[in-house]
Amino acid sequence: MSRIKATGLAHKVMDAAQAAALFTNGMVVGASGFTKSGDSKAVLAALADRAAKEDIKITLITGASLGQDTDARLANAHGLHKRMPFQADPVLRKHINNGEVLFIDQHLSESVELLHNHYIPQLDIAVIEAALITEDGSIVPTTSVGNSASFALMAKKLIIEINTVVPESIQGIHDIFVPDDYPHRNSIPVNVPDARVGTTTIKIQPDKVAAIVYTAVQDSPADIVPPDAKTEAIAGHLIKFFEAEVAAGRLTNSLLPVQAGIGKVANAVLNGFRKGHFADLTMYSEVLQDSTFDLIDAGKLRFASGSSITVSAECYDRVVNNLDHYREKIVLRPQNISNAPGVIRRLGVIAINTAIEFDMYGNVNSTHIGGTHIMNGIGGSGDFARNAYLSIFVTQAASKNDTISHVLPMVSHVDHNEHDVDILVTDVGLADLRGLAPRERAKVIIANCAHPYYRDALQDYFDRACAQRGGQTPHLLEEAFSWHVRLRERGTMKG
Amino acid sequence: MSRIKATGLAHKVMDAAQAAALFTNGMVVGASGFTKSGDSKAVLAALADRAAKEDIKITLITGASLGQDTDARLANAHGLHKRMPFQADPVLRKHINNGEVLFIDQHLSESVELLHNHYIPQLDIAVIEAALITEDGSIVPTTSVGNSASFALMAKKLIIEINTVVPESIQGIHDIFVPDDYPHRNSIPVNVPDARVGTTTIKIQPDKVAAIVYTAVQDSPADIVPPDAKTEAIAGHLIKFFEAEVAAGRLTNSLLPVQAGIGKVANAVLNGFRKGHFADLTMYSEVLQDSTFDLIDAGKLRFASGSSITVSAECYDRVVNNLDHYREKIVLRPQNISNAPGVIRRLGVIAINTAIEFDMYGNVNSTHIGGTHIMNGIGGSGDFARNAYLSIFVTQAASKNDTISHVLPMVSHVDHNEHDVDILVTDVGLADLRGLAPRERAKVIIANCAHPYYRDALQDYFDRACAQRGGQTPHLLEEAFSWHVRLRERGTMKG
Ligand SMILES: CC(C)(COP(=O)(O)OP(=O)(O)OC[C@H]1O[C@@H](n2cnc3c(N)ncnc32)[C@H](O)[C@@H]1OP(=O)(O)O)[C@@H](O)C(=O)NCCC(=O)NCCS
Ligand SMILES: CC(C)(COP(=O)(O)OP(=O)(O)OC[C@H]1O[C@@H](n2cnc3c(N)ncnc32)[C@H](O)[C@@H]1OP(=O)(O)O)[C@@H](O)C(=O)NCCC(=O)NCCS
Repeated sequence: MSRIKATGLAHKVMDAAQAAALFTNGMVVGASGFTKSGDSKAVLAALADRAAKEDIKITLITGASLGQDTDARLANAHGLHKRMPFQADPVLRKHINNGEVLFIDQHLSESVELLHNHYIPQLDIAVIEAALITEDGSIVPTTSVGNSASFALMAKKLIIEINTVVPESIQGIHDIFVPDDYPHRNSIPVNVPDARVGTTTIKIQPDKVAAIVYTAVQDSPADIVPPDAKTEAIAGHLIKFFEAEVAAGRLTNSLLPVQAGIGKVANAVLNGFRKGHFADLTMYSEVLQDSTFDLIDAGKLRFASGSSITVSAECYDRVVNNLDHYREKIVLRPQNISNAPGVIRRLGVIAINTAIEFDMYGNVNSTHIGGTHIMNGIGGSGDFARNAYLSIFVTQAASKNDTISHVLPMVSHVDHNEHDVDILVTDVGLADLRGLAPRERAKVIIANCAHPYYRDALQDYFDRACAQRGGQTPHLLEEAFSWHVRLRERGTMKG
Repeated sequence: MSRIKATGLAHKVMDAAQAAALFTNGMVVGASGFTKSGDSKAVLAALADRAAKEDIKITLITGASLGQDTDARLANAHGLHKRMPFQADPVLRKHINNGEVLFIDQHLSESVELLHNHYIPQLDIAVIEAALITEDGSIVPTTSVGNSASFALMAKKLIIEINTVVPESIQGIHDIFVPDDYPHRNSIPVNVPDARVGTTTIKIQPDKVAAIVYTAVQDSPADIVPPDAKTEAIAGHLIKFFEAEVAAGRLTNSLLPVQAGIGKVANAVLNGFRKGHFADLTMYSEVLQDSTFDLIDAGKLRFASGSSITVSAECYDRVVNNLDHYREKIVLRPQNISNAPGVIRRLGVIAINTAIEFDMYGNVNSTHIGGTHIMNGIGGSGDFARNAYLSIFVTQAASKNDTISHVLPMVSHVDHNEHDVDILVTDVGLADLRGLAPRERAKVIIANCAHPYYRDALQDYFDRACAQRGGQTPHLLEEAFSWHVRLRERGTMKG
């Protein structure tokens, strides 16, 4: 019981099944968890068990994706009515795409705004993983902050999951800042990535605590995909680009604070910074990944700000056993601070995110397959791309034996439009779109990024669109999606 | 000469033709002017005269649109190579759409970032309209600030147009704040609409002044379109919505700071605030229009922040002759401050902008006709819609004898995607999309906003897309643009 330092809360301890009995059908639930880290390991699982037997469906709002197959279990048990703001689970994805679960895909900085503005009903219960409850009745989060601070503030009741595999020494890694209410909100005073502007714990109202549940389960590890020829090529183009920016005097060899999306490309790019003349780098990102800690250990990265630590099992042990070493080098913030539009612009963040596909004018699809089926969600890509100093999107030029081109006449779904995209990179090459009008962008994207097999077809479409229709953004609307249609009908985009 | 208080600058006075001789082919030029206000009246016109006779083409960057037919004259004289970040001129539009002039359509808050980051070449010359040059060698802008402060700072040379129809008493209306350079930028300390955080004049380096030209020409007046049945209906739906928000306790009768786009709908909505219980309203907007001053005079609007004053000839006289009265009630800011993402979110702005068309999932097209031809540009709509407390878009349900539906299966161009759109309004009705997933949004948009003639066809498309494809955002890609294609081929969207 030593993890509960506050007096008067110990009697709230119960097991997960008992805590799960507190939920009723139709409730709106906020839960900790961001990119599989710091999520509920026991209570939501127990709720899924209940939902498998009873008619109980909730609206579930998290930080971002959950680990532990929790989303899959809840979806399979028909326990989800609505889900937001992000997910990355194949089973839940299926339930969303067949219309069984309603999914609201949100900019990660915005979920607490929507709650705060009462656009989403008040949270009935918040379930928050914590390392401990302090003497003054605050909670210390674990490996993510996500939306937990605002959830704790706004929920009617709180269930706290104390995870004893996370050492108490994690205290001090978090920086909790909650913006004031309208119309008296002040600016978020984060002017450098390593600014600490809030408290190290989340203040709660003890009388809202409905249950405390003990767990001892590690976060689901990140899937580390080893680099391959394509990710190496993408990383290579980008590192060359950054070196050229430094040579041109637009950046120093400390660059500006870097944000990197999840996945193998991001890891490959970050690893690329270990070579070369880069020094004293900083990150202002969402997720701190293996590569973040590798760069810190290599002496290249001075400081990293994020909202979660999502790493492989090996790296997890390294971090958790050396928290005193990393404490001065990292900070975990609420996602409305890590992703705050104003802070991202103020710091001049270099944003590197992965696209599902992009088009010849530089519009990016991050979320939908074939214009209809969601993959994961927009996540923080919009918060960063819109406000970044440099907004970079990467993807492979073609996939599945080159039957799918990821460079297209028109994207089947627009998450980021040409205004928000500066640099596009595929394994084929890099398109620098800065200062270019749409017709100029098309030429560079087709020449530099398209897979050779599709290059002529793209150029042909562009030429005919210019000749037959013209305009600021020439298109043949009746043909714009023909590549996607062909893929659906014939299993290949090849004409 | 009394408008030049600084000693040592009087000898720079010359006529417009002499100043126009300072330009050479290929130059990058920054010019004041925002929504037809505070623009160059003499020098750019004289440059157009030169371009009509000589081979001289420039890249022209302004605040937003220009008045005085300057864009038309420059385009007709083939004097424009590239143009950014906004325009609203029918002649220039034609030259852009036929590919003669390259147009970069930018979020209005971002142009100075792009210049500052050297993504656009350094300005060779900035042409800035001023009311006077002060003793300490600063300039007092006129009816707009736009990008003038940063242009003055970043250009190699300055041409100042002193416009004597603007009274010197305009001094004090402007609040000039220029963000610092990366990596040492601080937050923009605007925490309330009436905050004054900078200087009242634009500091310049006197040795950069290449010419001073006197003019005495009034800004082109705003086109005030009288309200009609459709705009009255849209305004009516919105006012009813705001009254309901107040009744529900989500807003007080002072609302939150309002931003209103240009055009007849915005004026109609703002006029609607004169009725009802609204009091102590504020605006944090781009353009201060006739309706702004009418609301101030009616005692309903306490304070209005913008980047320009763009009003009818009648209202212009009223404002210019009563500057002492309005000085405490309005402020003009640089557009990277009026449109700053962080400030818009911090203040909780209610953003009301006009769409060209929107689709059944709530994606909005603000810029392109038929997916190809630019109308004006995205302007500040993205800065506001993305970061607003409430993001509202309005348009008519159908136009041109109802041959065009403005509510569509899929927009032909995406400027704002469903993440950034809370409320949609047409003359038919209002769709409140807060807290709804895409499939739920479609039902509300079709039922509430679509023109009755097109309602069943939209519902039919949606039903078939759900049944045949499914997904988070059901679509039949091969049919998604069929309404636009039909309009192009047969002159009507009617099936
Ligand atoms: C976009 C995103 C899904 C890419 O992730 P990734 O794992 O690098 O991408 P992958 O290439 O493995 O996956 C894309 C899949 O879509 C497939 N695909 C792409 N276009 C397709 C199309 N038109 N039709 C069918 N399948 C298509 C690819 O072939 C690939 O399939 P596979 O997984 O079977 O190989 C991921 O980055 C994401 O969710 N981003 C949005 C959130 C975000 O950017 N957050 C930023 C801050 S963390
Ligand atoms: C979107 C915008 C053009 C609407 O302006 P508006 O004057 O209210 O719109 P209108 O209805 O008069 O004009 C739209 C025209 O497009 C036409 N149109 C719309 N959809 C069309 C289509 N699919 N095909 C052909 N024409 C179409 C309409 O019929 C109308 O034509 P008309 O002018 O001949 O009547 C304008 O608000 C704008 O430029 N917005 C972007 C910038 C912005 O929002 N700034 C915000 C801060 S100021």
